[in-house]
Amino acid sequence: MDLRIKMRIAIAGGAGYTAGELIRILVNHPQVEIKYVQSESHAGEAVYVVHRDLLYLPLTFGDIDFSDIDVLFLCMGHGVSEKFLSAHQIPATVKIIDLGNDFRLAENAHGFVYGLPELSRETIAKSSYIANPGCFATAIELGLLPLAALNGLPDEISVFGVTGSTGAGQKPVADTHFSNRCNNLSNYKVFIHQHLSEINETLKRAGAENSYDLAFVPVRGCHTRGIIIDTVFRTSASVRELTDLYKAYYAVHPFVCVSDEPLYLKQVVNTNYCFIHITQQGKQTLVTSVIDNLLKGASGQAVQNMNLMSGLEETMGLNLKANYF
Amino acid sequence: MDLRIKMRIAIAGGAGYTAGELIRILVNHPQVEIKYVQSESHAGEAVYVVHRDLLYLPLTFGDIDFSDIDVLFLCMGHGVSEKFLSAHQIPATVKIIDLGNDFRLAENAHGFVYGLPELSRETIAKSSYIANPGCFATAIELGLLPLAALNGLPDEISVFGVTGSTGAGQKPVADTHFSNRCNNLSNYKVFIHQHLSEINETLKRAGAENSYDLAFVPVRGCHTRGIIIDTVFRTSASVRELTDLYKAYYAVHPFVCVSDEPLYLKQVVNTNYCFIHITQQGKQTLVTSVIDNLLKGASGQAVQNMNLMSGLEETMGLNLKANYF
Amino acid sequence: MDLRIKMRIAIAGGAGYTAGELIRILVNHPQVEIKYVQSESHAGEAVYVVHRDLLYLPLTFGDIDFSDIDVLFLCMGHGVSEKFLSAHQIPATVKIIDLGNDFRLAENAHGFVYGLPELSRETIAKSSYIANPGCFATAIELGLLPLAALNGLPDEISVFGVTGSTGAGQKPVADTHFSNRCNNLSNYKVFIHQHLSEINETLKRAGAENSYDLAFVPVRGCHTRGIIIDTVFRTSASVRELTDLYKAYYAVHPFVCVSDEPLYLKQVVNTNYCFIHITQQGKQTLVTSVIDNLLKGASGQAVQNMNLMSGLEETMGLNLKANYF
Amino acid sequence: MDLRIKMRIAIAGGAGYTAGELIRILVNHPQVEIKYVQSESHAGEAVYVVHRDLLYLPLTFGDIDFSDIDVLFLCMGHGVSEKFLSAHQIPATVKIIDLGNDFRLAENAHGFVYGLPELSRETIAKSSYIANPGCFATAIELGLLPLAALNGLPDEISVFGVTGSTGAGQKPVADTHFSNRCNNLSNYKVFIHQHLSEINETLKRAGAENSYDLAFVPVRGCHTRGIIIDTVFRTSASVRELTDLYKAYYAVHPFVCVSDEPLYLKQVVNTNYCFIHITQQGKQTLVTSVIDNLLKGASGQAVQNMNLMSGLEETMGLNLKANYF
Repeated sequence: MDLRIKMRIAIAGGAGYTAGELIRILVNHPQVEIKYVQSESHAGEAVYVVHRDLLYLPLTFGDIDFSDIDVLFLCMGHGVSEKFLSAHQIPATVKIIDLGNDFRLAENAHGFVYGLPELSRETIAKSSYIANPGCFATAIELGLLPLAALNGLPDEISVFGVTGSTGAGQKPVADTHFSNRCNNLSNYKVFIHQHLSEINETLKRAGAENSYDLAFVPVRGCHTRGIIIDTVFRTSASVRELTDLYKAYYAVHPFVCVSDEPLYLKQVVNTNYCFIHITQQGKQTLVTSVIDNLLKGASGQAVQNMNLMSGLEETMGLNLKANYF
Repeated sequence: MDLRIKMRIAIAGGAGYTAGELIRILVNHPQVEIKYVQSESHAGEAVYVVHRDLLYLPLTFGDIDFSDIDVLFLCMGHGVSEKFLSAHQIPATVKIIDLGNDFRLAENAHGFVYGLPELSRETIAKSSYIANPGCFATAIELGLLPLAALNGLPDEISVFGVTGSTGAGQKPVADTHFSNRCNNLSNYKVFIHQHLSEINETLKRAGAENSYDLAFVPVRGCHTRGIIIDTVFRTSASVRELTDLYKAYYAVHPFVCVSDEPLYLKQVVNTNYCFIHITQQGKQTLVTSVIDNLLKGASGQAVQNMNLMSGLEETMGLNLKANYF
Repeated sequence: MDLRIKMRIAIAGGAGYTAGELIRILVNHPQVEIKYVQSESHAGEAVYVVHRDLLYLPLTFGDIDFSDIDVLFLCMGHGVSEKFLSAHQIPATVKIIDLGNDFRLAENAHGFVYGLPELSRETIAKSSYIANPGCFATAIELGLLPLAALNGLPDEISVFGVTGSTGAGQKPVADTHFSNRCNNLSNYKVFIHQHLSEINETLKRAGAENSYDLAFVPVRGCHTRGIIIDTVFRTSASVRELTDLYKAYYAVHPFVCVSDEPLYLKQVVNTNYCFIHITQQGKQTLVTSVIDNLLKGASGQAVQNMNLMSGLEETMGLNLKANYF
Repeated sequence: MDLRIKMRIAIAGGAGYTAGELIRILVNHPQVEIKYVQSESHAGEAVYVVHRDLLYLPLTFGDIDFSDIDVLFLCMGHGVSEKFLSAHQIPATVKIIDLGNDFRLAENAHGFVYGLPELSRETIAKSSYIANPGCFATAIELGLLPLAALNGLPDEISVFGVTGSTGAGQKPVADTHFSNRCNNLSNYKVFIHQHLSEINETLKRAGAENSYDLAFVPVRGCHTRGIIIDTVFRTSASVRELTDLYKAYYAVHPFVCVSDEPLYLKQVVNTNYCFIHITQQGKQTLVTSVIDNLLKGASGQAVQNMNLMSGLEETMGLNLKANYF
């Protein structure tokens, strides 16, 4: 593409968490101009009224002129994206990336491609419509992808995942009340989390043919950002073999690092990275994967997909300073 | 009183934070039987459905039989207590302690006595109706009471107070959303906090006759429980004189300790104590006072008042294990 | 026993976290007088210099006169208790409760009885020497005890446990630095935690005869107090059968409640309770157990054991107000 | 300068917090190449062993070849910079930026210029040696600079400042132990904080000629990053006049924004911004300023100074995505 011309971007559902993160990334992306940030509830207000770090940003929530954009991000509540697309005439030249879950499953895809670059980079690069993966789904899939690709998933897999309060969205509810959440932990949607469907589809697409049994316990953590996934199974493959397998698989993927050292969550917070570590005792095996749920689990991955779809460097605009502390 | 007969207690507005704390104290109070916990929104539900630590407590939210109680606690939203009392016939023998702000000011007292035991223990002991002080008010008043009693308040006083999320009540709002509150600080109601009126009335009642200028900056802290008040003024009295004055004043008050060592908030969290420390450099003087906003700042002080009104030991049921960590 | 005479207590290793919690409980225990709090590093200092909530407590760290006590608590670093006992002549009439791990395993017991009241209440009641269980061990064992008692442990068990910073003790290290710990999560001692030995011994003692495979992933959480244990396995027993089994087993144990509702950690923080909940989807089964690591996981259980050994009510002094927020 | 040639950078004291933040910024700075990261304690280790987000960074702690660098950052403990410079021969062509406090005061400057760009941008641009301001000093100075420039400082100023745990450095101590710090607040160095000297020098240099009385209460907050400064004084100037004055003063300074809306700390966390807001009731006036102590209060400001000294755009490499949550 002609690098002198910036891509024109619109964000629909611009007042939520993932939209805010998207704006924070895109204001510094060298090949992007944010043209429109749409929000029904905040129409006419300055963007910084909602995303209050952006005090200096001269943008106002307003309607989108679809004839004036190249890429459209949908940051709407689950179930709303499809309605939004039905309600508007959008030129075929506009690329669309949906951060909701409307188009992630094959049966509802409507031509959208599941946007996990570490599984389908080439397909994504040729697509115009991307269903951006869920946050838990991303972290769990990246923790199992190399095994699935070998059709080597264990029969029984127990997954324990702790997510931050931003995973619950911005609407204040009892579970995100600071008085309740601080210094607390609790399980939710045990064994029935809605991401299980896209996880299973993805693992099968990657190559898993056997009927494994994956039990997933999601946990609300007393932190704001980030997901840690602990995936436990028994295997006779050694930790060295597994680590080598994972390193080989991810060697060509800039945002996944396989670490020889144990991990902690904040290594990746406020970045687009997924870090992975494997440890073992006898046959007991643990794969740990950590991501920022709002970045690699949402808006960062969306920009990664946008870069791939647009022929840009995959990492462009995504060299983010970790918050770290 | 006859110690073989327990006082029969009712709590109106039983689903909120202060009611929960009151129940947690009263279930272990040796002279109390909780007869009724009233809640409109939760009528018919078990108390443990709301106050979930009390899994073992066989109490259900329901209406109050006012002829069957000795003490009534009102734990309702501000402005609701007066309506509740108007709507019900309550025998004159029933003692009432209101944890809201309806009756705290002289102009609205309706016979209620402002329940700060460290100012008015004898009056409280003879009263049947108590207006329990506000949380910020309690901590600020205790930090200035000995000076006010000498009519020695400085001309200019700057007060900085940080409160926890429980001070904002249980309704989830943006300011108490964990994603916003964690790792954050912000001011609110700067110089205009609603407790300023009761603070000024209390200081005058204690003996302050001059027209001091008290500027109060309330701050939302990223903690759940507790208030730290930093009161700054200039004085030529020495730190030794001030400390001695405070120690003498509070010597007879079991829940206020004047410390020679610097303080931190968690020394008093989950207790009914107020700890105070004074430090100085030249004329610059700092009085620090710390309390648990839900206990000495609300439900603990209410029980302290109940004890005084009932001729019981002031500390009965209030020897609480500090949470400390 | 003669209730007019209080038991005389000494605490060795009095400056640490568990000693502080023990003092906080025992100062309000109606049948106890704390006679001695020993600490090498703080000899001669007031106890409140270290345990700073106890500003009002007139106790000083000093040596123990073993002829003047009835019960001795050892709150020393792991490995130190045995040395301490060897170095001192302690009358045979003195009951000893060790909160360290020196005497927990059969091969090192030296006559100490493993002090899990929900397994061995009668034996404890007749013992003079108690090895108090580890914190993770307590929570994991209570989550599996009813199954072990039926010799019904599943073949493969995956246990995820998140503990607070107080579990790491009071010595400041990198992992407990607030800058690192806040908003963070990390695994440690994966599959090799030192409590696994006492867990396996306990489960066998309870009745487990099969060779189950228990994989335990301990996690450092960004909270201060409390352990949540998620135990995952597959079984064809229904959640109803399991819940009934657990309720029946724990019906006679005052500090274990089996809840029909999902749990969260803070329901038990600052109490001596263990709450348990079971949920299921198909054969995937989750048993969740939550405790306060410093209370039911240490000092609270130690007092529970003291009560049993002394013929007192098991719950005496342990009706603690939950911190809850 | 020739933009094709990157500046060669060395960092001495590379294992600490400010060095880590400096590296995180500089790895993405388009005109910089990090040549050397020196650390005595970690010599020979990979940089990512200490700064663990930088897993992908091929840099090793080692000695500095001073003939091979253009800019040297000193990130050493206070008092160590001067010794380091004495111990090494550093060519006169090497620009030096000291993040410690060795050269901040006029009496110890040794030719270093106090690097507050909002006061001395032109002088900094012509200097080779910069003493980077302290974190509290930066936030307090920016909150008073426009008044000082008019010689309009009030007679009595009370300053409350809350800082995060990263302000205390990386060495684990009792005050930064998570068990102590979480949910806690405490004062320290009340009225005697070491930054008071540089604050007073700066305000005088800016134009303050009167003898004001500034009382500063520093507070340890239960957050990791960021400083909020509440500066209270009485004035007859209106909030409108003050806000206009501040906006005019900072109009040419890209990293200071004067907000018409109340602030909170996380608006600036993980950015190089200082946000300021003024509010008033009668004569009671509050100026609030918020910064990230590790960025605008340390490493970000150091890069801002480097840019100015090197003729680069002041904001280059400093368009950082706010962490925000």
